[in-house]
Amino acid sequence: MKILVINCGSSSIKYKLYDMTDKSVLAAGGIEKVGLAGSFNKVALPNGEKKIISHECPTHTEGIKLMFDTLLDPEIGAIKSLDEIDAAGHRIVAGGTYTKSQIVTDEMLEGWKPFMELAPLHSSAHLKGYLAVRAQLPNLPQVFVFDTAFHQTMPPKAFMYGLPYNYYTDYNFRRYGAHGTSHRYVTARAGEVLGFDPKDVRMITCHIGNGASISAVDHGKCVDTSMGLTPLEGVMMGTRTGDIDSSAILYIMEKEHQTPEEAIDLLNKKSGLLGISGVSSDMREVEDAAEKGNERAQLALDMYSYRIKKYIGAYTAVMGGVDVIVFTAGVGEHQWDVRKATMEGMEYLGIQLDQEKNERNNGEEELISLPESKVKVAVIPTDEELMIASDTKSLVAKQ
Amino acid sequence: MKILVINCGSSSIKYKLYDMTDKSVLAAGGIEKVGLAGSFNKVALPNGEKKIISHECPTHTEGIKLMFDTLLDPEIGAIKSLDEIDAAGHRIVAGGTYTKSQIVTDEMLEGWKPFMELAPLHSSAHLKGYLAVRAQLPNLPQVFVFDTAFHQTMPPKAFMYGLPYNYYTDYNFRRYGAHGTSHRYVTARAGEVLGFDPKDVRMITCHIGNGASISAVDHGKCVDTSMGLTPLEGVMMGTRTGDIDSSAILYIMEKEHQTPEEAIDLLNKKSGLLGISGVSSDMREVEDAAEKGNERAQLALDMYSYRIKKYIGAYTAVMGGVDVIVFTAGVGEHQWDVRKATMEGMEYLGIQLDQEKNERNNGEEELISLPESKVKVAVIPTDEELMIASDTKSLVAKQ
Repeated sequence: MKILVINCGSSSIKYKLYDMTDKSVLAAGGIEKVGLAGSFNKVALPNGEKKIISHECPTHTEGIKLMFDTLLDPEIGAIKSLDEIDAAGHRIVAGGTYTKSQIVTDEMLEGWKPFMELAPLHSSAHLKGYLAVRAQLPNLPQVFVFDTAFHQTMPPKAFMYGLPYNYYTDYNFRRYGAHGTSHRYVTARAGEVLGFDPKDVRMITCHIGNGASISAVDHGKCVDTSMGLTPLEGVMMGTRTGDIDSSAILYIMEKEHQTPEEAIDLLNKKSGLLGISGVSSDMREVEDAAEKGNERAQLALDMYSYRIKKYIGAYTAVMGGVDVIVFTAGVGEHQWDVRKATMEGMEYLGIQLDQEKNERNNGEEELISLPESKVKVAVIPTDEELMIASDTKSLVAKQ
Repeated sequence: MKILVINCGSSSIKYKLYDMTDKSVLAAGGIEKVGLAGSFNKVALPNGEKKIISHECPTHTEGIKLMFDTLLDPEIGAIKSLDEIDAAGHRIVAGGTYTKSQIVTDEMLEGWKPFMELAPLHSSAHLKGYLAVRAQLPNLPQVFVFDTAFHQTMPPKAFMYGLPYNYYTDYNFRRYGAHGTSHRYVTARAGEVLGFDPKDVRMITCHIGNGASISAVDHGKCVDTSMGLTPLEGVMMGTRTGDIDSSAILYIMEKEHQTPEEAIDLLNKKSGLLGISGVSSDMREVEDAAEKGNERAQLALDMYSYRIKKYIGAYTAVMGGVDVIVFTAGVGEHQWDVRKATMEGMEYLGIQLDQEKNERNNGEEELISLPESKVKVAVIPTDEELMIASDTKSLVAKQ
C-alpha cells in the first residue's frame, strides 16, 4: 500500500510517499514559497542529495500539481501513474475536539470547519491542499491526522482556562495542545524499544524542537500538555516566549501602540531563544555563542532548560510520580547538554542519567538512564510522517 | 515603641497601630471610598465590634487626617498625641529591584519612582499616603516595606521572560512576584513553630487568598514565585485567570474589539473562580454551590487545586526536592479541602497528610502532616502588618 503524507503550511507543501509494506520512503520533497514569487520544490533523492526544481506555484493547487508531477518524473520520480497511490494523509494542526484521525468526507469537513479559526493560516492551507488533491484524484481516499487528537483525553481541570466560562462555550477557547502525533508516536515507540506497555506507566514526553511541548501521558493517555489554545504557551522555544504574564504583553501594546496581530507576531516570532540571546533561534548557534562567553546566550540556555524542568516537575505531580521520560525532536534528539541540564538535580524522583550514554547519544533510540535509575530516561527520535501514514493506512484498510 | 502600619490603595487606607513592646494592636481601621462619595472609616474596637465613622475624604490627604483624628478620638482612639507614634511603615506593592525595606528619604523616593509604573494605581496611592503623613508629621520616620523584596533573590533564569531582551532593559519587564512580605513572614514563622532554621530546608510557601501565589524558598532564599510582572500570573485566583495562553486574550481583543485596559480588567476582575463558576469569587460560596451540584463550581474547584499542585511539583523540581510546605492566607488557612486536594497523590514526594488534623485545622499554627511524613506540611497564618511593623521598628532603631 502506497500512502502519500502531505503537510500543507500557508506557503509550503511537504510530502512523503511511503511504501507501507516495509514503511520505506519512496519519495520526499518540500515545496517552498507557495503563493509567493520564486517557488521551488526541494526534492530528496534516494542517494541523499537534494535537487531543486524551480516552478512558480501561485496557489496550493499549483503546488499540489508540482508535487504529483515530481512524483511521476521519469528521472527523479517514484511512480509511473498516480493510480499507484492508495491514499493521502494530511497533517492538520488544529483538530478541535476530534479524538482520532478521520477519513475526510463532506460531512466530516463541515464538522471540522468551526475549529479552523483556532489556527486560521494553517487550517486554510490544509483545506486548500486537500481540495487540490481531490480535484486531481477525486476517488483517492484522504485522511486528516490531527496534531491535537492525542491530547483530547485531557480532563477539564487541565484543559480549561480561568477565563469567564462563556469563552469556552462561545469560542471553543481551551487548551488543545500540539505535536500530538509526535507525542503519540514516541509514547508507543518508547514502549516497543524499552519493552513496556504505555498503559502500565506514567510518562513525560518532551518534544523539543524549534517549537516545543511537554506532555504528561498517564497510563497511555495524555492528561496534560504544555501548549495551549495555540502553540505559544508552555516552555520557551526558538522564537516563542512560552509562558508569560499576559499583563506584560498588554502593557507592551499600550506602550508601543501595537495591534493584537503585532503582539502575536512579537510573542511568536521575535521572542524565545532568539529574543533573549539576540543571536539566533537555533539552539546550536546559541550554544556556540554561550561557549564564546555571550552572557545573553547563556541566559537563554539557562531559561530554556529551567522551564522544561518546571514542566517535568509539574507533570510528575499531576500523575503522582513518573516512570519514563522521553526526549524527542531536534533539540531533544541532538542536544545532549539540554537533556543533561533538564535532568540535573532530579535525583529526588529517582532519575539517574547515564552521563556517558547521554553525551554520546545523537538521536539514536536508546535508554540514557543508568540501569538502577527508578525512572527510565530515553531518546526516541520522532516520526510524525510515519505516524500519519500508519493512521491513513489503517483507516483506509477498514473501509 | 509605637508603630503605625499603613496600607494605601487607590480608594482605601487600612491601618494598624502596634505597641511593639508586646506586639499588641492598639488600634485598627480601614477607610473606604477615598476619593469617592460616601467615604467612611470602619474602626475595629477593642471589644471586637466595628464602628463606622462617616466622613468625606475626597483625597488621600483627607483620609490620612481622618485616620489620625480617629486615633486621637477620646472615646475610640488609642493615643493622646500624635507624638506617641514612633514611626510609620507603608506596604508598597511594587518595589522593583529593592531587596529590603527602606527608610524613606527624598533620594530613596527618586530611586523608587521608575518602578511606580509597574503598579501605577497602587504606587500613586502609596506615594499620596506617604506625603500626607509627612505633611502632618514632617519628623516622623517612615519606612517602605516592599511586597516584592523577598523575591529579589530569584536568579535570572527564574525572573526573566522569553521576550526580546530590550523589554527587560528598557521597561524593567521581569518577574517580580507579590505577597513577598507574607512569604517571608511564614517562612520565618514556620521555622519558629516547627523548630528548624529556614536556611537548612527547601520550602514551598502557598499564600492562597483571594489573590494567591506560591513561592519556592530554597535554604531561606526565594528562588521562584508564581506571580510575575503583575499579580495576574500564576495559580488561578478569585477573579484572576492565573496562567493562560496569551494568544487567548489577544484573540478576545480582536473578536470583541477590546482595548488593552479592558483586557486587563477581564483577566483580573472577571475571571478565575468567579468566571468559571459564575457563582462567586469567594471560595466558600463556590464550595457551597459545588456541594449543591453546580458543575461549573466543581470545575472551578478542581482547576484551582490542580494548578496549585502543578506549582508545587514545578518548585520541587527547581529545588531538587522539598522538605516543608506551608499553607497561609484566607483559603490556605481556612479551607481544609483545598489543602487536602493539593496534597493528594503527592506521596511520591514523601508527603503524608494527617487527614484528621488537616480537617480540624481552621487557621491555627500547626503541623498537619503525619510524624512519619518526609515532608512537613503546616498551616501558618500570615501577618503581613506585623512583618511591616517589625521591619519598621528595626530600621528605625538602627538610625
